[in-house]
Amino acid sequence: MIDEKITIEYSSNPSLNKPKLICGLPGSGYVGKLAIDHLIDKLHAEKFADVYSSSFPPQVSIQQNGTVDLVKNSFYFSKHDEHDLVFLTGDAQPVSAQGEYALAEEIIQICKKMNIDEIFTLAAYITGKFSESPQVFGTSTSKDVVDGFSKFGILGMNRGNITGMNGVIVGIAKQSSIVGSCILGETSGYVIDAKASKAVLESLCKILKITIDMSELEKRAKDTEEIIKTIQAQAAAQGNQEHAIPYKSESDEKSLGYIS
Amino acid sequence: MIDEKITIEYSSNPSLNKPKLICGLPGSGYVGKLAIDHLIDKLHAEKFADVYSSSFPPQVSIQQNGTVDLVKNSFYFSKHDEHDLVFLTGDAQPVSAQGEYALAEEIIQICKKMNIDEIFTLAAYITGKFSESPQVFGTSTSKDVVDGFSKFGILGMNRGNITGMNGVIVGIAKQSSIVGSCILGETSGYVIDAKASKAVLESLCKILKITIDMSELEKRAKDTEEIIKTIQAQAAAQGNQEHAIPYKSESDEKSLGYIS
Amino acid sequence: MIDEKITIEYSSNPSLNKPKLICGLPGSGYVGKLAIDHLIDKLHAEKFADVYSSSFPPQVSIQQNGTVDLVKNSFYFSKHDEHDLVFLTGDAQPVSAQGEYALAEEIIQICKKMNIDEIFTLAAYITGKFSESPQVFGTSTSKDVVDGFSKFGILGMNRGNITGMNGVIVGIAKQSSIVGSCILGETSGYVIDAKASKAVLESLCKILKITIDMSELEKRAKDTEEIIKTIQAQAAAQGNQEHAIPYKSESDEKSLGYIS
Amino acid sequence: MIDEKITIEYSSNPSLNKPKLICGLPGSGYVGKLAIDHLIDKLHAEKFADVYSSSFPPQVSIQQNGTVDLVKNSFYFSKHDEHDLVFLTGDAQPVSAQGEYALAEEIIQICKKMNIDEIFTLAAYITGKFSESPQVFGTSTSKDVVDGFSKFGILGMNRGNITGMNGVIVGIAKQSSIVGSCILGETSGYVIDAKASKAVLESLCKILKITIDMSELEKRAKDTEEIIKTIQAQAAAQGNQEHAIPYKSESDEKSLGYIS
Repeated sequence: MIDEKITIEYSSNPSLNKPKLICGLPGSGYVGKLAIDHLIDKLHAEKFADVYSSSFPPQVSIQQNGTVDLVKNSFYFSKHDEHDLVFLTGDAQPVSAQGEYALAEEIIQICKKMNIDEIFTLAAYITGKFSESPQVFGTSTSKDVVDGFSKFGILGMNRGNITGMNGVIVGIAKQSSIVGSCILGETSGYVIDAKASKAVLESLCKILKITIDMSELEKRAKDTEEIIKTIQAQAAAQGNQEHAIPYKSESDEKSLGYIS
Repeated sequence: MIDEKITIEYSSNPSLNKPKLICGLPGSGYVGKLAIDHLIDKLHAEKFADVYSSSFPPQVSIQQNGTVDLVKNSFYFSKHDEHDLVFLTGDAQPVSAQGEYALAEEIIQICKKMNIDEIFTLAAYITGKFSESPQVFGTSTSKDVVDGFSKFGILGMNRGNITGMNGVIVGIAKQSSIVGSCILGETSGYVIDAKASKAVLESLCKILKITIDMSELEKRAKDTEEIIKTIQAQAAAQGNQEHAIPYKSESDEKSLGYIS
Repeated sequence: MIDEKITIEYSSNPSLNKPKLICGLPGSGYVGKLAIDHLIDKLHAEKFADVYSSSFPPQVSIQQNGTVDLVKNSFYFSKHDEHDLVFLTGDAQPVSAQGEYALAEEIIQICKKMNIDEIFTLAAYITGKFSESPQVFGTSTSKDVVDGFSKFGILGMNRGNITGMNGVIVGIAKQSSIVGSCILGETSGYVIDAKASKAVLESLCKILKITIDMSELEKRAKDTEEIIKTIQAQAAAQGNQEHAIPYKSESDEKSLGYIS
Repeated sequence: MIDEKITIEYSSNPSLNKPKLICGLPGSGYVGKLAIDHLIDKLHAEKFADVYSSSFPPQVSIQQNGTVDLVKNSFYFSKHDEHDLVFLTGDAQPVSAQGEYALAEEIIQICKKMNIDEIFTLAAYITGKFSESPQVFGTSTSKDVVDGFSKFGILGMNRGNITGMNGVIVGIAKQSSIVGSCILGETSGYVIDAKASKAVLESLCKILKITIDMSELEKRAKDTEEIIKTIQAQAAAQGNQEHAIPYKSESDEKSLGYIS
């Protein structure tokens, strides 16, 4: 294994109609991760590929059924009338800058093979303040998309950075002439924020012309918050831990499992 | 030398009968390292290979006889009726994520050449609390192994991560269709815990159908604890040290030595 | 993508007369960055190339028009009587030592193709003390250049390091027989220091025999200071932020935009 | 430039009689660096090669004459009756584990080309306590060398690590059948310790059967101490410095200069 080694393991090869990609990798506030897990759950999306990278944290992740697998990202899909949807989420982001660029390039290669021409990443817009009705912000590689955001209640931005995979995927998409947009939910950054995720999802659903039930989103946020508190308490009790309980989503629980 | 350079130096090429691999690399609580050092000692296991990697900490390690060698991992073997055993332990783990993935891949390649079809890694399950009778936890790449854990007094897990080589080796094993299992001993994480190591060894010995004398394990833990305290005191006295006394096991002391 | 992947995207291919390169990448005190942004603005320099590297921070940067692009460096040029000028600035420096060396080598290759035989980098000479009339220091790969510094009010130095791209570019230039010089403005290091930038620019303009209006430089410094304070306040409010408002120069605002 | 790029620039190609290599790279206590700078000075050793690596800190170093060069290591030689001597010292050590291993391999390749069959590295044995008459410790890849240490007043060691280039060079030497030994001077680790350097040099001179004047060593230590205090004061005054005054030895001052 030399440098970033990225391996894609396909469990199926779905035939998709004009698919679009939605990404929500774990980041600050879990806004995007919580949103995509809810989407995958409610749309009964099916896993079709796992992505392994030597730039992921060197860990295995214990699954619901007691077995174990390397930390990974996974692709899911769901069928729809106008555009089928592909989802990308996972346990972690790469630990290095080069690992992030390399993985984003690999993801864009996969998108090209699937004829995906538009990507949305879901992220957090952190303010340090609590908000009862969080706003939704957006940016895109396409000026047309930016100009159309207001129709979906999305505010534009004119400066700032989006760090991590939810940003880099959009930037690499641009270099391959794929339209990349990032939808960010306003959040304090202090809690797992179901309201921010819901706001992001509502805007995204308008764009994608789909509807999903939001009723369980708040419970999902509470469960996630609790798990993360447990992890942090354990991590505080030990400098150099070999074992910790991480954030684990329902979408992982119902995944097809990995076939080597 | 480009990137991770991994070198294997064989001092002998043992012919082994249906071997299984037991790994215990230094990690939190030294639970696995203490256990495997005891196993190697009591089973009179013989060293047959050293593993060097440019991802190990850039250090040499002074040996019992006053000579010096690069930080390394080493393979040992012992002969048994049903299954011969191979042991992997060492001075350190790689310093980078990529170094861990690369070394785990190399180890799995070595396993394949030796027809090893099952791997056990020994690790710590850190709770932050002291326990008089530590429990033993387990996970595996095989659902059958997980289902059989209860016969050996091993509890299953349904979430969490195992970080470092003791986790990654199991994850990479899965990708090569080798069954990988991790046995974790409950420990506070605050001391070198002979009780946790003993509990892990007792479960492992049941699985492997071997018996070993545990009487010296507690003394070994005390010696280890003392050495580590000395190191930490020295490390505290100096920001940027060039010289420190690390953990040094008896299994290293009796090793065959390295032939270049 | 393997290791440092550096991509150059040309939007035009200007024909230049005996060009010299001026570099000012963001570093401590923003002395060089503020100076080069002012130069680019006042000389109406035109962007002709963007440089992307997998060693840059893994981020996208939101542009003035609401669209987004990967963090990048950019080349600009302006036409003059005696020597045309090429400018290099950008959003960030690479995050690793190897990334800095690799990018500096790439920049020097570009210089060689453009027949650039002299490079000036603009940097900060940090003293920890405020100075009303900051001094200007200089060093060069050429003893002749060093000996001529006094004509331009530049003080020599006889020990010390210049870290980061503003140093490494000069060092790599030397290995390609290009004369590299670094002009450093004395600054406290605590604020965005228009006085230091102005002092550096005055010396540089004497060397290059050009004149520019300095009247807006102080306003530019104040704007920059304010933006950076906002960023730091936001960064303090969040450990692991996904979104932050970075330093954004006018030269970026008026850039040609990126054509993939 | 891919990964570690190491470049050797020879200014001359001396013909040497049964040469041995002495290494003293900057490390804790500057024990080895101070000793080798004194040796190079007193033996009028002549520089014949510079070593550049993309794993060195990304910095240029301002020379005594006001010009500038990339951070580097340098080889010197001096002619003697029985064995000619080669010296390796420099501005810095690599910033990464892989960079250290790669550079040590390159150095050993150079040794092989020069038929060097024995290497001594000079280092610090840090105790955290001040000692009026510091002891000298030693370890070697050769048991014979270890057994002979007592003749030169050098104490053996039976555990511990030697981190950094002064250790890794010895370890890599062993893998190429070159005898590598490390001589360590007892020091508190808190000051530049002329006494420790003198003790190391006295033992080394006995081994090498050479004599050198030690009278200026204490002055050299005081000068070094003062320069380092200045650097640390400056570094404390600035988080993210672009410019700092580092340790600069007389051996660098008299160096031949670099010819590209």
